Amino acid sequence: MTHKLGEASLHEFYRNRGFSGRVGFGRHPAVLVIDLAEAWTNPRHTLGSDLSEVVNQTCIILQKARKVGIPIIFTTMFFDDELTDLPMVIRAKVPHVTELKRSSTLWHLHPALKRDPKTEPLLIKPRTSAFFATNLLSILNDKGVDTVIIVGCVTSGCIRATAESALNYCFHAIVPKEAVGDRSQSAHEANLFDIDARYADVVSVDEVIKYIDSLSGK
Amino acid sequence: MTHKLGEASLHEFYRNRGFSGRVGFGRHPAVLVIDLAEAWTNPRHTLGSDLSEVVNQTCIILQKARKVGIPIIFTTMFFDDELTDLPMVIRAKVPHVTELKRSSTLWHLHPALKRDPKTEPLLIKPRTSAFFATNLLSILNDKGVDTVIIVGCVTSGCIRATAESALNYCFHAIVPKEAVGDRSQSAHEANLFDIDARYADVVSVDEVIKYIDSLSGK
Amino acid sequence: MTHKLGEASLHEFYRNRGFSGRVGFGRHPAVLVIDLAEAWTNPRHTLGSDLSEVVNQTCIILQKARKVGIPIIFTTMFFDDELTDLPMVIRAKVPHVTELKRSSTLWHLHPALKRDPKTEPLLIKPRTSAFFATNLLSILNDKGVDTVIIVGCVTSGCIRATAESALNYCFHAIVPKEAVGDRSQSAHEANLFDIDARYADVVSVDEVIKYIDSLSGK
Amino acid sequence: MTHKLGEASLHEFYRNRGFSGRVGFGRHPAVLVIDLAEAWTNPRHTLGSDLSEVVNQTCIILQKARKVGIPIIFTTMFFDDELTDLPMVIRAKVPHVTELKRSSTLWHLHPALKRDPKTEPLLIKPRTSAFFATNLLSILNDKGVDTVIIVGCVTSGCIRATAESALNYCFHAIVPKEAVGDRSQSAHEANLFDIDARYADVVSVDEVIKYIDSLSGK
Repeated sequence: MTHKLGEASLHEFYRNRGFSGRVGFGRHPAVLVIDLAEAWTNPRHTLGSDLSEVVNQTCIILQKARKVGIPIIFTTMFFDDELTDLPMVIRAKVPHVTELKRSSTLWHLHPALKRDPKTEPLLIKPRTSAFFATNLLSILNDKGVDTVIIVGCVTSGCIRATAESALNYCFHAIVPKEAVGDRSQSAHEANLFDIDARYADVVSVDEVIKYIDSLSGK
Repeated sequence: MTHKLGEASLHEFYRNRGFSGRVGFGRHPAVLVIDLAEAWTNPRHTLGSDLSEVVNQTCIILQKARKVGIPIIFTTMFFDDELTDLPMVIRAKVPHVTELKRSSTLWHLHPALKRDPKTEPLLIKPRTSAFFATNLLSILNDKGVDTVIIVGCVTSGCIRATAESALNYCFHAIVPKEAVGDRSQSAHEANLFDIDARYADVVSVDEVIKYIDSLSGK
Repeated sequence: MTHKLGEASLHEFYRNRGFSGRVGFGRHPAVLVIDLAEAWTNPRHTLGSDLSEVVNQTCIILQKARKVGIPIIFTTMFFDDELTDLPMVIRAKVPHVTELKRSSTLWHLHPALKRDPKTEPLLIKPRTSAFFATNLLSILNDKGVDTVIIVGCVTSGCIRATAESALNYCFHAIVPKEAVGDRSQSAHEANLFDIDARYADVVSVDEVIKYIDSLSGK
Repeated sequence: MTHKLGEASLHEFYRNRGFSGRVGFGRHPAVLVIDLAEAWTNPRHTLGSDLSEVVNQTCIILQKARKVGIPIIFTTMFFDDELTDLPMVIRAKVPHVTELKRSSTLWHLHPALKRDPKTEPLLIKPRTSAFFATNLLSILNDKGVDTVIIVGCVTSGCIRATAESALNYCFHAIVPKEAVGDRSQSAHEANLFDIDARYADVVSVDEVIKYIDSLSGK
């Protein structure tokens, strides 16, 4: 028999079973900005919803990270125009991916993010986790990163999958909750719960800002 | 603004946005039995809950699969007795893993599964996805498998993570809903929803049995 | 004490020690064309050498594969113009990679290959193995491929590394020897020896052509 | 046309083409001891050769590493007694792997290595690279390692494959040449050349000892 509990007691229930520990912050963070691009941030598109507050909160973190010199990495998604690099079973499960073509503008980053092309890589990822079939892991290791602050969208897809991978590869995975979003509020909440229980510390943007400040104070 | 919807309209909402397509069954299935071991199936343990019905449903599938000669692969989890192969950040996030030692019996498979050691591999996995840091992918490819029927526990952890990996590697990922379980009913339901929307076809055990029958009829 | 032997007796020595078995051809091949691009095929470039015969032999295989409808996948290499996605330790070990920028023409495929952009993916790989940090494995699995015919350059680098990965993931790895080349003849020969001993069947282009013919005769 | 050159001019030839750069030592090394087990170190076995000097040199490095507290990780290979986890294509290519069964003693480490089971993990790897289908990458990242000193056997197989993976994941890969060995002297030399050109700095054991001393002097 499984359990039906309110959220507070569910937290307690999980903690008693050895979940929801704290990985804490390490000493060498990077900010990983997931898929804050036209397809997801413009509500008029199939995949889009209003993520303006997520973009705002992300910009607050980015501004601080740039001041202190913390590495920033962006991801987005596209396939070639003929979709020759898009597998059929992926297309079958999530048909929306067929819209993400190189020649479209759907994969273009939200302009408010002001990515600096001289220092901030933009990785093209084919699946939910930013670590899958990309060079991200090598780039993070090369920079000596031990902590990955994951922001962007969507909580129930690419954010959760990326947090899982980040912990798998033994990064301190941190998800600032106001800087991630989802088209479904219930999916957002259920997945933040699972992420905090299993993969990453779900914290506030304020805690992330204080942490970055503490690094620059060194 | 994100959406608050009942489950029926949430399904509709997702389908309209290009989720929840059908990957369907392929032609060369394998059954992947995730973590139906003492630690998870005995309610007296930290991680345990009553999964007897999940074990029963799994046995129904296994019996059919053995008759037809479909490959069966089991997973479980343990670390060495000194935990030298258990990373500290994993331990920090999910402290229960420290119980999973080789010399304990927590990782032993539920006896009702009747694993045949001559033909059915038992893989030791260190993380949620059965594909992470194991030889599973190579074994599946070697057997010419194109369809992975994922059963066992828990829905919100290893089942979801394994379904995600299976689709990433372009297997037809299938989750028979009565043959997967979780210690939390709400986490079970929320994750079955996400799995069906993004990673695997969530079907009934009956559908899986009919599919296997259709193969043996060839 | 280790052994110093002529090549014939070295083959014998390895076979006696359980190397150099035959993986043979499977039933669903793909042709994987590695890095036959301007940087490697034009002798005037840092990495270039005269690979015109390798290109010719590759074209013979491609022509046959296209007639029969065998999947063909190309790879090449580039990094972004600011090299933000090129790790420093890679740059330190093989400084030539800094030339491989997106805005250069060095990564453009040799025109004789006549890649069909409608059906033949071109994957951008960051390292020697075509499987590393790319979507190749998923694309092969999606197409039901069990046999990878590896052609292109260079034998001692990307060909060997790709053959190793292909066997790791349990594809029948096949290297037609006249269709792979290297800037160093001694490195070419030493690596073909190791590839055949450990990772792939080194065969003639003729054998590959006969195999493909046998498939079309079905 | 490719080149036939003596070794000195071959080095020059490669350096002019942007190979054989130095990755140098980082600040947080680990020692990775590859397959110094009964199967490889006892000349009476199929895979064995006299590697006593490699074992000696490895012990010199281990003694120093233990004094300074540098992480040490061992690998070996085995499959289950029924070989259910050994893919058929691997068996076809390198039939010797069928000897490596859990119940045999072939995978037992050479006793001179004096592995400390309390702090030094022993990873079971199924293929040549120690990173393939193991938890090694996560363990290294968890310990904050940036430099991997690779010792053991054999140069043309597991050492080269592991060095390649180590650089792929952006570790400073270091191979002390007296502490790696091979059953074939020519394969040893040809592969040390390629390793130094492409994947790792090939140095002397003395250089490694001096480097470790420099760390302890901090």
